[in-house]
Amino acid sequence: MQNRKTLLTEQEIPDKWYNIVADMPNKPLPPLHPGTREPIGPEALAPLFPMELIKQEVSTDKWIPIPDAVRDIYTMWRPTPLYRAYALEKALDTPAKIYYKYEGVSPAGSHKPNTAVPQAYYNKMEGVKRITTETGAGQWGSALSFACQHFGIECEVYMVKVSYDGKPYRKMMMNTWGAKVYSSPTDHTQSGRQILAQDPNSPGSLGIAISEAVERAATDENTKYALGSVLNHVLMHQTIIGLEAVEQMKKVGDMPDVVVAPFGGGSNFAGISFPFLRLNFDEGRNIRFVASEPASCPKLTRGVFRYDFGDTVGMTPLLPMYTLGHNFVPAPIHAGGLRYHGAGVIVSQLLKDQLIEARAHHQLECFEAGVLFAKTEGIIPAPEASHALATVFAEAQAAKEEGKSRTILFNLCGHGHFDLQAYDDYFNNRLVKHEVTNEDIANSLATLDTPVI
Amino acid sequence: MQNRKTLLTEQEIPDKWYNIVADMPNKPLPPLHPGTREPIGPEALAPLFPMELIKQEVSTDKWIPIPDAVRDIYTMWRPTPLYRAYALEKALDTPAKIYYKYEGVSPAGSHKPNTAVPQAYYNKMEGVKRITTETGAGQWGSALSFACQHFGIECEVYMVKVSYDGKPYRKMMMNTWGAKVYSSPTDHTQSGRQILAQDPNSPGSLGIAISEAVERAATDENTKYALGSVLNHVLMHQTIIGLEAVEQMKKVGDMPDVVVAPFGGGSNFAGISFPFLRLNFDEGRNIRFVASEPASCPKLTRGVFRYDFGDTVGMTPLLPMYTLGHNFVPAPIHAGGLRYHGAGVIVSQLLKDQLIEARAHHQLECFEAGVLFAKTEGIIPAPEASHALATVFAEAQAAKEEGKSRTILFNLCGHGHFDLQAYDDYFNNRLVKHEVTNEDIANSLATLDTPVI
Repeated sequence: MQNRKTLLTEQEIPDKWYNIVADMPNKPLPPLHPGTREPIGPEALAPLFPMELIKQEVSTDKWIPIPDAVRDIYTMWRPTPLYRAYALEKALDTPAKIYYKYEGVSPAGSHKPNTAVPQAYYNKMEGVKRITTETGAGQWGSALSFACQHFGIECEVYMVKVSYDGKPYRKMMMNTWGAKVYSSPTDHTQSGRQILAQDPNSPGSLGIAISEAVERAATDENTKYALGSVLNHVLMHQTIIGLEAVEQMKKVGDMPDVVVAPFGGGSNFAGISFPFLRLNFDEGRNIRFVASEPASCPKLTRGVFRYDFGDTVGMTPLLPMYTLGHNFVPAPIHAGGLRYHGAGVIVSQLLKDQLIEARAHHQLECFEAGVLFAKTEGIIPAPEASHALATVFAEAQAAKEEGKSRTILFNLCGHGHFDLQAYDDYFNNRLVKHEVTNEDIANSLATLDTPVI
Repeated sequence: MQNRKTLLTEQEIPDKWYNIVADMPNKPLPPLHPGTREPIGPEALAPLFPMELIKQEVSTDKWIPIPDAVRDIYTMWRPTPLYRAYALEKALDTPAKIYYKYEGVSPAGSHKPNTAVPQAYYNKMEGVKRITTETGAGQWGSALSFACQHFGIECEVYMVKVSYDGKPYRKMMMNTWGAKVYSSPTDHTQSGRQILAQDPNSPGSLGIAISEAVERAATDENTKYALGSVLNHVLMHQTIIGLEAVEQMKKVGDMPDVVVAPFGGGSNFAGISFPFLRLNFDEGRNIRFVASEPASCPKLTRGVFRYDFGDTVGMTPLLPMYTLGHNFVPAPIHAGGLRYHGAGVIVSQLLKDQLIEARAHHQLECFEAGVLFAKTEGIIPAPEASHALATVFAEAQAAKEEGKSRTILFNLCGHGHFDLQAYDDYFNNRLVKHEVTNEDIANSLATLDTPVI
């Protein structure tokens, strides 16, 4: 019997996160104040985040220790298993070896608790009573609800209205962990009221929900804000995935030629990739990295690299990122976690420096891959994860055409238990290829008055 | 950092199932033909099951080898983790040590694939093209869909209409694994048409769905039937849970004083209990075993031990079981997997012989326990599993009152990702205590003309 899974013990859970900023040939450009457009320092973030997270956000230390209390909670589901996808390889008839790291074993069902737990922990240490956040499909809101519950912190989640109405189970999950969940836009923030005044039937968006959650934290001294992707400290927390995977690949006696992950704001991709990218830096390896994004929201493959806001209303600092413009409205694909106009600062710089690659897939291709995965490997992937699968399939096909093996590792970032409506829509031909024209992108970018780089 | 989980390697997955029949002081009474009411032999089951499963059903061998092909599929999620519930212990302020075996890591989210996989395997080996089954809440139907998909067998699931309408995600999950799912009663079996003629708006029941699935298999030579609980071979397949748990408890250096599991037809309870009960037989230990059933369907605590049918229409053999009568209609509690009028033959005999105990809990008590578990241990339990929790809480409280420690092990048989509506109903006071009167039970039993024992 071949080993399918490679496990680590709880004692082998890494005791530090990897901060790739230390190794980047070109460091990230500074964030700018949304009003003055001058570079801002850490103190500007103090109304929103606890000091320890701000320190991590701007740190250039290569390794940041993981507190014991955080590692202890990580043991609720970590280390996560590394799988060899024997059944999938056979179905694809490829000489490639395919591995996946499965993050869906967390209580919230995705990789998001990897950062929700330390964020809640540092807030708790600094006496914060309440954390606000936004959520789209609900993966991030669930993770933060779970983490806040553990530390006895109140959690308020602004959930995009279309998801609030369409994914009631996600809301119930957050409620079970004690969180308050609001359908965004609400009438209890100025940002929400501003949107509702323009359109009382607004379906909401991630950008609007961010505006609401940020405003709430900025105007209440007992309340802080938490973000589930994009920011440096969030990406760093997720490196726990790749740090474990490096050890697991060593145990197997193999090493990836290419690492693949879905791309929304970057934390999923960074989480599995950066610890392997470190091996390129430190050991001169030539591992490739491919970020898989939806063709309907192609910021990495078709966006521009310039300063832009993180939210719709324009409350956040300006960040140097690949973006489609913060007014870009992605088509309503089921992979809600990937419907975001911009990319995290670090990942954007790495793409600009050609240290990573990106590839876009339309959703029909992704669901086709997701269904084959479910039928072979058993696990039903989240729609976000199915984007990585589409890239994996392309890499496996390339290996077949070359007649050479290659080792592919991807991040199966979550299960699709709350996304089965998407599969049903796919089976019943209710999904379409959403095409984004060059004109759509040009029109969105034309609305920006933010600094170019 | 304390170890929270105890793991085994894939090589440590047991290579045989434990057949408790070999060790029972009083062997089970024989099944009777539904018409003649004479004892039947294995050949009577041949229209429904492949021969290898029939052999297992009547075997008195103590150990039955697990085929390598089955063990190989088990590695998709097994060995499952054994958790020490530190956070729950603290919240309960109990001197008791609480452990749980977590079976929700399977692709279908419960312990059910432990038997679905070998059942599909033996059918495949004997050339069966199609398997039919029934499902209530959907745990079993999902598991069989997953297993059949793996072996390329068609799967037809008769899903109780109220669940089909109320739990669409379960249906979509089965569809994703390629199964056909029908809302039972249907108009394409005689049993279904008979029910619909009486009541065109019948909400269906597990008993009716069993009648439909059995009829379909009995009348098509390429089709067999599979059952998710009750039968001897099903219970035996589930002993993989307890066999692993015995090894894990040994690794921890502890041993349970009491083993607890939810009780529907018996496979969940048998799975974790029998390998520890073997230690009582073989090593003279004094481990206690408590089956947790819903107060609204109290066959173990308030039923009678006599012959009864497994289904509503009366197509199955008569089995010697604790039963409320096959016409008993349990209240519509969310723990659909426990809404069954009877108990498996082996478990019934063990209860009669006082080798195991039973305890009933109403659903409000169970959800209260389930919510505290979710808030402390993170995992949201299936409503079925929350029944075990209610017993665990009572045992932990008893330990506290005695001022002595005791070691409690329970089977966390599945997660509640598809049952969040139940939690929402609980939080919003839409659930009630369903009381069953002695008159209700007497009335149901009065309809029986089956042999008394």
